[in-house]
Amino acid sequence: MLLSPADVNPPTEERSIRISELADVTGIPVATIKYYLREGLVPRGRPTAPNHADYDTSHVQRLRVVRVLREVGGLSIETIRQVIAVIDDPERPLHDVLGAAHRAISPSSSPVAAPDREMAEVDRLLGRLGWDVDPNAPDRRELADALVALRSLGHDVTADSFVPYARAVEPIAADEVAGLPAASRDEAVEYVVVGTVVYGAALAALRRLAQEHHSARRAADRRSLS
Amino acid sequence: MLLSPADVNPPTEERSIRISELADVTGIPVATIKYYLREGLVPRGRPTAPNHADYDTSHVQRLRVVRVLREVGGLSIETIRQVIAVIDDPERPLHDVLGAAHRAISPSSSPVAAPDREMAEVDRLLGRLGWDVDPNAPDRRELADALVALRSLGHDVTADSFVPYARAVEPIAADEVAGLPAASRDEAVEYVVVGTVVYGAALAALRRLAQEHHSARRAADRRSLS
Repeated sequence: MLLSPADVNPPTEERSIRISELADVTGIPVATIKYYLREGLVPRGRPTAPNHADYDTSHVQRLRVVRVLREVGGLSIETIRQVIAVIDDPERPLHDVLGAAHRAISPSSSPVAAPDREMAEVDRLLGRLGWDVDPNAPDRRELADALVALRSLGHDVTADSFVPYARAVEPIAADEVAGLPAASRDEAVEYVVVGTVVYGAALAALRRLAQEHHSARRAADRRSLS
Repeated sequence: MLLSPADVNPPTEERSIRISELADVTGIPVATIKYYLREGLVPRGRPTAPNHADYDTSHVQRLRVVRVLREVGGLSIETIRQVIAVIDDPERPLHDVLGAAHRAISPSSSPVAAPDREMAEVDRLLGRLGWDVDPNAPDRRELADALVALRSLGHDVTADSFVPYARAVEPIAADEVAGLPAASRDEAVEYVVVGTVVYGAALAALRRLAQEHHSARRAADRRSLS
């Protein structure tokens, strides 16, 4: 994915920003910024006078990621707090930060116990693909649930039916990870959430459009034969 | 996608089926079948006695597609009625039936007017891809909305950023359309809805898992360098 967050954080020297400027730059109303400050989602500024504080570009980045988690990810304040806690924990590597962002925006699994047989099939599939994925990644469950759904509808399929889909998305995912901004953890989370949600919607739309195109071509071929 | 509906409709001679057998075969309760009959989603059976009718395998297929539209597609009875009307109209080619199924299960667009600039960019993109797609396909709007979302978040992207995603899904879509069951329009709609929704969820999960894999590999590479 080709996001270019460069316009937001020019590598200039740090300067002080007032809360009204924060609102102008991020498009987030002052009242909402104050709410995020109270909720601890955004760190306090440097106090300059009673009831006044100065902020800096790190606050702009943090506000951007909170906005994206809310508006694009559709997350609750509580879930955003959990993601922010991982961002702010210097002991956690960037890979964990991405995992936390992924988990927050992934569809939540059915409360029914995971289907043993299908979970084992998905594990074997990921092994065959050679993918290094956390044994507790919730998307394993997503795949197992898809298999259960197909079988309950009477389709005699195995996890191998996912292989062409896995092969199709792997090069995309490699490019996406290669493009991850490394300088700021807030920026990295913003990139992952926007990329996963917005480009995910685009990917689904493109798949349907490509199906329509191939269906139209098939219909035209049949007309020309008859 | 590798669906095999063969187990449901063995090509044996037609035989009469009672409503209780319909319920057994499809797993749909008799009361629900009667409701679908009253709503006109399933054609009436052949009357054999007062309050009795016989059904056949076409009713089994129809019940399966109604169930899939409801449970997998999450559609209202009214939307299902619209899809069924296209299935049952002999004047409409199979390509239209697929389009109707697609439209029913696609995300519904924002009620705000379509963004002119982004719609034009998406049209040019589809032209460059050489895709033959209905000018009114709602997924054009989906892509335009994704561009608007990216820009409103400050990302300076063009419709070209969708090209790698389009290239990735095109071969999958070609296989999916090639596998479309041609013998029955009900079966074709079931295939499209199950394929789009269930394999769509699997595709999204596989993309996230592939991202995790590449992120893990990147983290391991950096550890081995340090």
